[in-house]
Amino acid sequence: MEKLTVVKVGGAVVEDEAQLMQLLSDFAAIEGRKVLVHGGGRRATQVASQLGIESRMVNGRRITDGAMLGVVTMVYGGLVNKNIVARLQATGVNALGLTGADMNVMHAHRRPLKDGIDYGFVGDVDEADGQRLATLIEAGIVPVMAPLTHDGQGHMLNTNADTIASETAKALARHYDVTLIFSFEKRGVLSRPDDDNSVIPVITRADYARYKADGTVSGGMLPKLDNAFDAIAAGVKAVNITLATAIDGHHGTMIVEA
Amino acid sequence: MEKLTVVKVGGAVVEDEAQLMQLLSDFAAIEGRKVLVHGGGRRATQVASQLGIESRMVNGRRITDGAMLGVVTMVYGGLVNKNIVARLQATGVNALGLTGADMNVMHAHRRPLKDGIDYGFVGDVDEADGQRLATLIEAGIVPVMAPLTHDGQGHMLNTNADTIASETAKALARHYDVTLIFSFEKRGVLSRPDDDNSVIPVITRADYARYKADGTVSGGMLPKLDNAFDAIAAGVKAVNITLATAIDGHHGTMIVEA
Repeated sequence: MEKLTVVKVGGAVVEDEAQLMQLLSDFAAIEGRKVLVHGGGRRATQVASQLGIESRMVNGRRITDGAMLGVVTMVYGGLVNKNIVARLQATGVNALGLTGADMNVMHAHRRPLKDGIDYGFVGDVDEADGQRLATLIEAGIVPVMAPLTHDGQGHMLNTNADTIASETAKALARHYDVTLIFSFEKRGVLSRPDDDNSVIPVITRADYARYKADGTVSGGMLPKLDNAFDAIAAGVKAVNITLATAIDGHHGTMIVEA
Repeated sequence: MEKLTVVKVGGAVVEDEAQLMQLLSDFAAIEGRKVLVHGGGRRATQVASQLGIESRMVNGRRITDGAMLGVVTMVYGGLVNKNIVARLQATGVNALGLTGADMNVMHAHRRPLKDGIDYGFVGDVDEADGQRLATLIEAGIVPVMAPLTHDGQGHMLNTNADTIASETAKALARHYDVTLIFSFEKRGVLSRPDDDNSVIPVITRADYARYKADGTVSGGMLPKLDNAFDAIAAGVKAVNITLATAIDGHHGTMIVEA
């Protein structure tokens, strides 16, 4: 199978002009087939605030009422997505911005009440259409995916960008040898949270069990790693957790089955 | 050649919930290959105002400084486009939202100073990629085009939706037997502006010359008709100017070469 790289870039990078330009230049330099998935939460919070709409987060997830759905649809699907697409086009990357509604590439359902919490218009993904994405990719297109899905009944839904990235990688794993890169503000999974030089280069499933048991890995890194191993269990070849300025697949932490 | 219909729908319809639902239902009912082009100017003005950004219009065109470019990118590319795409998906139309930057389907250049007026980030279209659009359409996709282009150097540009529609129709005329429908708030080209029942059913180029000379047609209708005859000169088979609730190709005014 051909190799394919899915890169997820978070809001903090997307919203910093210098970091974004570096990221897009590094992404353009990745050889072969690829997909970019972006966040944009900070910008959404900022625009919402300017519009007098309060952002409410529960467990790190945005409560998305009708007004906030309008904001994230504008900011993720329009402002952030199209600026990335235009910039990639300028570097010769034939980018196509997509939400889950476009060509129905990612269908979702509205999240049911969880522990009594109504997250509003938040989508849990049912399925990504790997065949449709692969057809585009084989035509030389580079999908740029916003963290938005739809319910098939006419509503857009707000969906976590890490989830968009892992669902995309999983769907494409039937067609390609997929590496999924989660880029963020740290150099990788750290064995000592305050020491940027303590990056763990490789984590297998057995390592992960051990690190969880002895407390080496904890907090916000746990969902990220669970997500990574889920992707691997679904056929993704490797998951790389790395700094946004080091997405060449040779830095940070590599997550592998064994 | 196969038939294809390009429907342009203006902001007033897009932003009225009931009219939009009717329009999308009518659009879904159009048989065969099709493209939807939408505006959204009133919503952009509204969001800009909420963000404390003043809208300045000259000759009916929006002066687009950096802040306003952000607003139209959000509103046209995100809010309006994705809501239309999600709703069309709900009716079984496999819609794909596009700006000119996406897959480089519509390249433009920033408008030079005109009569000393700097329109800002406004794009005059260089070329639409009819081949790329035709490939999508043959795969069963229905493009939904926002009034945004790009300059190939990383910038989005604001472009009039009528222009997007006619450039799309012209580019597709090499591949299809194209009918271009401009839907708006009147029943067609009227011989007496205040009489909705005075629709002129067919206007040929010779008729148009006569109507211009005798003043039957004047004002804002002139650029629309110039635009229509341009499209026809470039190979578009017919242009229909009609009410937004009557886009079946059997109402309003039909513009034909002869």
